Amino acid sequence: VSSHAQLAPDPSGPRVRALEAALRAAIRSGRLTAGDRLPPSRALADDLGLARATVVEAYTQLRAEGYLSSRRGAGTWVAHDAHVPAAVPGAIAPDKPADRPPRFNFTPGLPDLTAFPRTAWTRALRRGLRDLPASSLGYNDPRGRPELREALASYLARTRGVAADPELVVVCAGFSHALALLSRILRRHGVRRIAMEDPYLWWHRNIAATAGLEVVPVPVDEHGARTNLLPETRAGVALLAPAHQFPLGALLHPERRTAAIAWARATDSLVIEDDYDAELRYDRPPVGALQALDPDRVIYAGTASKTLAPGLRLAWILVPRALLEPVRTLRWAEDVHVAATEQIALAQLLLAGAFQRHVRRMRTRYRARRDRLLAMLAERVPDASPVGIAAGLRVLLELPPGSPPAEELAAQASRRSIELFPVGPCYHDGRARYGAPDGLVLGYAGLPEHDFENGLTALGDLLARSLSLR
Amino acid sequence: VSSHAQLAPDPSGPRVRALEAALRAAIRSGRLTAGDRLPPSRALADDLGLARATVVEAYTQLRAEGYLSSRRGAGTWVAHDAHVPAAVPGAIAPDKPADRPPRFNFTPGLPDLTAFPRTAWTRALRRGLRDLPASSLGYNDPRGRPELREALASYLARTRGVAADPELVVVCAGFSHALALLSRILRRHGVRRIAMEDPYLWWHRNIAATAGLEVVPVPVDEHGARTNLLPETRAGVALLAPAHQFPLGALLHPERRTAAIAWARATDSLVIEDDYDAELRYDRPPVGALQALDPDRVIYAGTASKTLAPGLRLAWILVPRALLEPVRTLRWAEDVHVAATEQIALAQLLLAGAFQRHVRRMRTRYRARRDRLLAMLAERVPDASPVGIAAGLRVLLELPPGSPPAEELAAQASRRSIELFPVGPCYHDGRARYGAPDGLVLGYAGLPEHDFENGLTALGDLLARSLSLR
Repeated sequence: VSSHAQLAPDPSGPRVRALEAALRAAIRSGRLTAGDRLPPSRALADDLGLARATVVEAYTQLRAEGYLSSRRGAGTWVAHDAHVPAAVPGAIAPDKPADRPPRFNFTPGLPDLTAFPRTAWTRALRRGLRDLPASSLGYNDPRGRPELREALASYLARTRGVAADPELVVVCAGFSHALALLSRILRRHGVRRIAMEDPYLWWHRNIAATAGLEVVPVPVDEHGARTNLLPETRAGVALLAPAHQFPLGALLHPERRTAAIAWARATDSLVIEDDYDAELRYDRPPVGALQALDPDRVIYAGTASKTLAPGLRLAWILVPRALLEPVRTLRWAEDVHVAATEQIALAQLLLAGAFQRHVRRMRTRYRARRDRLLAMLAERVPDASPVGIAAGLRVLLELPPGSPPAEELAAQASRRSIELFPVGPCYHDGRARYGAPDGLVLGYAGLPEHDFENGLTALGDLLARSLSLR
Repeated sequence: VSSHAQLAPDPSGPRVRALEAALRAAIRSGRLTAGDRLPPSRALADDLGLARATVVEAYTQLRAEGYLSSRRGAGTWVAHDAHVPAAVPGAIAPDKPADRPPRFNFTPGLPDLTAFPRTAWTRALRRGLRDLPASSLGYNDPRGRPELREALASYLARTRGVAADPELVVVCAGFSHALALLSRILRRHGVRRIAMEDPYLWWHRNIAATAGLEVVPVPVDEHGARTNLLPETRAGVALLAPAHQFPLGALLHPERRTAAIAWARATDSLVIEDDYDAELRYDRPPVGALQALDPDRVIYAGTASKTLAPGLRLAWILVPRALLEPVRTLRWAEDVHVAATEQIALAQLLLAGAFQRHVRRMRTRYRARRDRLLAMLAERVPDASPVGIAAGLRVLLELPPGSPPAEELAAQASRRSIELFPVGPCYHDGRARYGAPDGLVLGYAGLPEHDFENGLTALGDLLARSLSLR
C-alpha cells in the first residue's frame, strides 16, 4: 500500500537562486520596470545555457514574491506592484532565506538577535511548565492564557497608559497575524477600505489587500499622519502608528490624535494602533497610547518582535468589547490560539521582571548605537539629514539634493554585501513626491554588537564615496 | 494624554455562567430546538430576578458559541446549527473554560495531558536554542525551520510511508490552522465544495464553512468513506481520514483508497488526508499513508496534538508542489510562520528519538486503557457494542435497541459530573439515520492515569443503571 511515488528531482539549486537574485536586483534597481515582458522560459534558458526547469522555477518563485505576474498564454511580465515587492530579502519581511546573507544588513525591522535572552527564555518556560495545570496543555481560550493576559494588561497599563482589561487582551502570532485577523473580520462586517499612513510598511498593505481591503493612503508630515483627512478616505478602519510612524519617525501631534478619535466616532469606524516599538524611546518622554482616549474605538496592538525576537511570533491586541466575540469565533475556526508554551514563557518573563530588565538593557545598547550612527553620519555625509531619531531601531537618512537615487545607492551597496533599504517603495505610489522625504531607512539594531563598528565604517565609506561623486 | 477611559463594570459572574449552562443544557438535551424563540432579555431577567445585563451577556456568549442566533428587531432564537454546536465544552474543541471541569471527562480528542514530557520538552528547547544561529530568531521561511522539516520528512517516510520531500513540508499551528489555510486557498482558486466523511468532526465543518466552502457529506460504512460516491459531490477537495475515521473508527478499504485517487485525478481535485492519530495503532499493522499513492493529489496532514499536546499548536502538512507557492504566499500575508522556539524543540525531540520513545510509551498506556475499558463494557453493558477499537484514543459505543437517546445519557452523566460525547451531532443532519451507528464516543485517553480506574467505575455504574432501565 505504501508504494512510494517518486517525485521529480528538485531543480532548486545555486543556478535557480542566482537567476532569482539577478532578476530581483534588475527589478529593484529599475532596469526592469512594471509591465516589462520577460522572455519565454525556453528562450531565456537557451540564452543563458540553463535548463528550462531552472528558469521556470525562478519565475515561479518571483511570482510568489510579487515581482512578476503571468497569465497562461500571455507570458510573464514585471508586476505592476513590483516597486512594492511582496517580500524584500533582509530584515523587515520574511523571505526565502538568502543564499548568502549580506555582510552588513542595515534594513530596518530586526532587533539584535544575538541578544535574545536564550537562557532566561528557557528558564521561564521551565518554571512556567512546572506550575501549569495539565489541562492548560489542551485546547485553550483563543484569547490566550489568562496569566499572560493579566501580565500584559498590567504591563501595558503601567508602561503605555492603555485602558487594559485582561478579558479584552488577545494574544496573536505576531502583528501580521493580528492585522490579517482584524482585516478579515472587518471585511466580513462590511468594511471595504483601510486608511494607512503614506509612506507605510508595504508588507502591511499586502496583508490588508489579501484580506480584501482596499488601502487608502493618508499623507504624513513631521507631525504624523494628517488625520484631519481621514473623513475623505471613506475608510472603515485606519492603521496608525501614533508613537513612532514608520518610516518617517514622527510622533502623532495631540490635535491629530483627537482628530483620529473624532473621525472614528463620527463615522462609526475603528483605529488600529500599531505600537510596535513602544518600549524604545531615547530623547523624549513616553507618550501614552492613543487607545486610552477611546478603548471602544481603538484596537491597541503590541509585539515582542522588537523587544525579544520576531521568530517567537508573539503579539497582543486589546480589542473593543464589541470585537471580542468576532475575534474569538474566527480563531476557533482557524489557529485556535498561540502555543501555550510560548505564552507561559512570556508570562513568566513579565511576572519576574526579566522582560523589563531585558528591555532596559537593550534600550541602552540601541541608544548608544544610534548616537554612534548619528556621529558617523555627521562626519562622513554632513549634507544628509537623519530624520526620526528620537525612538526606535532606525533613522531615515534624507539624501541631499542632487544625490543619486536611493535605489541606486542600495544597488551599489549590494555589490559590497551591504544591504540597504530605500524608502521609496514605502510610498503608496512607489516613490516620494511633492517634497516628501526620500532616502534610506537605516536600521541600526540588527547587526550583532561585535560587528556594529565594522558595519558603521563600511556604511560610512560607501555613503561618503557615493554622495561625493554627485 | 493617558487619561484612562473607564470601562463599564463587567457583569460576568456566577449568575451569568449558571444561566449560560442552563441554556446550553436545554439546547443540547433538545428541550429547546432550532428556531425556538427566547424571551426578550428584559422579560427573562424579570422572570428570573436577574439583572438584564446578566441575561444579555449570557445570550451574547451563546451566540458566540453558535447556540443562539439573533437579529436586531427580530429577537433571539435557537440557532439552526445548534445541534452542531460551534463549541462543545470538554476536550474536542476549544471553548470558554468551564467554571468547574467535569470530574471525569470522556469526550474524545485529548491525550493524557499529565503525561506531556515537560522536562524533555524544556531540555530539547535548551539544546535547540544553544546551537541555533541568531538569524533563525528573525523572520523565517513560512514553511518552517529546515531542521524540523527534514526531521519530519524522515520520520513520516519511515513511519507512514509518505513520499516526503522536506521542501514540501509546511509546519502549521495545529490541524485546524492547516485546514483553514487550505480551505481559504482552495476557495480562492475556485473550489466551492468540500466533501467530508459523514459523520465527521463538526468542528472541521465550521472551519471549512468559515472559509467559504460548502460541506457535502459522503456516507461512511465499516470500510470507511464511500469514496465511489465522490464524483456525485461535485467537490473540488475531499477531507478523508483513511487510517482511522472519526468517529466510526473505520480503516479505508484499499479499493476505496484507489477510488479516491481516481476521483481526484479525473476531476482535477485534491484529497486532504487527516492522519491525526497515525502513531496509535494496537491490533493491526500500520497502513501506509494514502498520500504515497499520488503526492500531487493528496495533501498529507499530521499533528502533535494526540502524541504530545494540542496546546502546542503544532501540525504539519506535505503539499503537492503546485500548492507550495500559494501556501507560502498566504502565510506571508498572515501569521508568517509558527514560533521558531517550538519548532526547534520538536525537531530536537525527533532527532534525539525522544519523541518516538514517548509515543511508544503512550501507545502501551493507551492500549492497556482500551483493554480495561472494553472489559468493563463487556461486563457492565454487554448489549452495547464498541466499534472502532483497533486504534486511536476512543471507541464508539453503539447503544442497544430501545436505549435512551445518547443525548439523554449525556445529560444524565452531566448531572454526575461525567462528560460524555453523543455521536449524533457528528452526522451531517445532526443525527444518525437509516441504520447508521448511534451512541457515545468514549475518549479513554484524557483522564489522568491515577484517576482512570475511578472514571471507569463511575462510567460503568452510570451506563449499567441507565441501560437497565429501558
